[in-house]
Amino acid sequence: MAKLYFRYGTMDSAKSMNLLAVAHNYRKQGKTVRLLKPAIDDRFGRDTIRSRSGLERKVDLLVDEDTRLDPRDFVGVDCVLVDEAQFLPPRVVDDLREITHDPGVPVICYGLRTDFRTRLFPGSRRLLELADRIEEVKVTCTHCNRKAIFNMRLCDGIPVTQGEQIALGDETYEPLCSACFLARVPLAVLRGESTPGG
Amino acid sequence: MAKLYFRYGTMDSAKSMNLLAVAHNYRKQGKTVRLLKPAIDDRFGRDTIRSRSGLERKVDLLVDEDTRLDPRDFVGVDCVLVDEAQFLPPRVVDDLREITHDPGVPVICYGLRTDFRTRLFPGSRRLLELADRIEEVKVTCTHCNRKAIFNMRLCDGIPVTQGEQIALGDETYEPLCSACFLARVPLAVLRGESTPGG
Amino acid sequence: MAKLYFRYGTMDSAKSMNLLAVAHNYRKQGKTVRLLKPAIDDRFGRDTIRSRSGLERKVDLLVDEDTRLDPRDFVGVDCVLVDEAQFLPPRVVDDLREITHDPGVPVICYGLRTDFRTRLFPGSRRLLELADRIEEVKVTCTHCNRKAIFNMRLCDGIPVTQGEQIALGDETYEPLCSACFLARVPLAVLRGESTPGG
Amino acid sequence: MAKLYFRYGTMDSAKSMNLLAVAHNYRKQGKTVRLLKPAIDDRFGRDTIRSRSGLERKVDLLVDEDTRLDPRDFVGVDCVLVDEAQFLPPRVVDDLREITHDPGVPVICYGLRTDFRTRLFPGSRRLLELADRIEEVKVTCTHCNRKAIFNMRLCDGIPVTQGEQIALGDETYEPLCSACFLARVPLAVLRGESTPGG
Repeated sequence: MAKLYFRYGTMDSAKSMNLLAVAHNYRKQGKTVRLLKPAIDDRFGRDTIRSRSGLERKVDLLVDEDTRLDPRDFVGVDCVLVDEAQFLPPRVVDDLREITHDPGVPVICYGLRTDFRTRLFPGSRRLLELADRIEEVKVTCTHCNRKAIFNMRLCDGIPVTQGEQIALGDETYEPLCSACFLARVPLAVLRGESTPGG
Repeated sequence: MAKLYFRYGTMDSAKSMNLLAVAHNYRKQGKTVRLLKPAIDDRFGRDTIRSRSGLERKVDLLVDEDTRLDPRDFVGVDCVLVDEAQFLPPRVVDDLREITHDPGVPVICYGLRTDFRTRLFPGSRRLLELADRIEEVKVTCTHCNRKAIFNMRLCDGIPVTQGEQIALGDETYEPLCSACFLARVPLAVLRGESTPGG
Repeated sequence: MAKLYFRYGTMDSAKSMNLLAVAHNYRKQGKTVRLLKPAIDDRFGRDTIRSRSGLERKVDLLVDEDTRLDPRDFVGVDCVLVDEAQFLPPRVVDDLREITHDPGVPVICYGLRTDFRTRLFPGSRRLLELADRIEEVKVTCTHCNRKAIFNMRLCDGIPVTQGEQIALGDETYEPLCSACFLARVPLAVLRGESTPGG
Repeated sequence: MAKLYFRYGTMDSAKSMNLLAVAHNYRKQGKTVRLLKPAIDDRFGRDTIRSRSGLERKVDLLVDEDTRLDPRDFVGVDCVLVDEAQFLPPRVVDDLREITHDPGVPVICYGLRTDFRTRLFPGSRRLLELADRIEEVKVTCTHCNRKAIFNMRLCDGIPVTQGEQIALGDETYEPLCSACFLARVPLAVLRGESTPGG
């Protein structure tokens, strides 16, 4: 019986670097890790986990809506690591939860907590429901020195409050603390009760 | 600028007792606390927070779907404490988030993470989205000594897998660890893919 | 194989109340707990753990320098709880560490981290060396709303900077945050490099 | 008013990699960090912080027993980061504590908790006394998949139980969980009550 971890953090909180450090430590001890990633994330090539600091590793398995994890494939594995876990289909999170019981492999998922509208992603939601341990990977706010907890989406430098949860265009993101975020993106606007500048 | 805390735990994890201890400590220091509770919870009378150990306090404000918190009512308050926060309307969680910024009062919410089907409650969900700090109140599993993370609903001693999120009948609940819970309530059953004993 | 926990907090952080809540939860589940306390603490009678909120329990074992814990006495016990653990002889902390391995009982120790001069107690020191998990029980500063981390000793309302680690007279204590403490008790004074008001 | 953090972990827990990730994040946001290191550690050259994964940064200041930090030198700095903090002279930890108050710069110290005999280092001890937050950097045991908390010293592959706290020879170290460590290095042996194999 092993544990399911959800290590959440905002954009740019070095989640992938942490994941690669954990993978490095396991391998250094002669242990076997399995790296998973949702197929949706192809910023750096579909089959690689890369941190901004230069480290990278090849992914063992890309998962999508049709993926069903077979517990027998994880016998003898010491740890499963998942990057960009906010994009995991909830059904795959269920499978990962079962792998921690049988064959009993710890699973550590790294991902965003919420989108640019402060809403959970489907994968984050299921992980927050099923995880044994919810841990935070921290980074400071872009505009002050408090802890960032939200992700602001920018288009041409302007904060965006509406749109698809996963955008594929020229958006950029900034990690912000609650105060700096809400000063730019009021909750009332996100609820659709008013418009910014309106 | 103050923080929003979500302190989650299973049934019987002494959340109310922790809340009352915090209230006691603030008052002992001559500080002012405000106690909130969703109107839905009337197990012990609508306007009281009571722990199983015998402690109790009168609630200052019962909140429901129509409640709009006015920041001016919280000027001079040192801490807002919320019991049974899983039942908070998401809109009220937004209000609490704003109170941490203006007038800048810390808000500590105690509540369940998930229901008997391992799904977030609406209040828990919004708190997990907006909280600065997500902290766990721990208790051991009813059937072993691992940490409980799920709440099993029982009817006449039999585990229940379907039904309303908030039941009003003769149900009882047990806090269980992941292994003991999934042995009794498989995730496939909760997904509706199979029936227990079927 | 079980874990050794050190849950530290300042004066008035409701450590005993937390301990009694844990004891209550174990007993409610039909499990067996063993309550330990250093013999040195006789504020409330030597053989009782009492929280300021009114809860109390009888202690199963008072420990002192001569105590040697026999692992066989802990077979079948589900949890060992220790109050005022800062006063534990280091040798007894070693014994508790071994009990977590054989017979494999979790041990949860509640105590102060440091004395009025910001120095570890002998028991705290050994616990910080050997614990699997170091967790904080929090309370706010007497003079502001930041987290308290230090214990100021007062004599007739005046901060004290010298004296025995364990005093037996008319001293009182206040939990203070770092800023409020150092404004009253500078580190240079504690190092003996200058005198307050001198 | 800022916070003092002690992030402790065993050998090989990727503490330096975490430190470099934090430094990277601050600099990416256009903020100023100051890197400190005790002069004693010259494994990789006296003036460099290097992680086993290949990242490295030049140290801004090497500190020793004679170092006195001048708060004015830290005006405008966004974060102070300290590597190998277990070797900090306690007097320098006092200085760092004061820098968090005036000019109010957060200080994050990474270091070992205990030596090969399960005893605190002088720097770790002072950090555990003064830190606002005590956080763990985790790694698994060399011999199993539990969390490592102790550092075993080996000489020619044989566990060592006596010797200087800081050795300069051909020793190697392994991070071990409590069970695997105590099976090889009994606490009674560390107390000098018996000899291994004796």
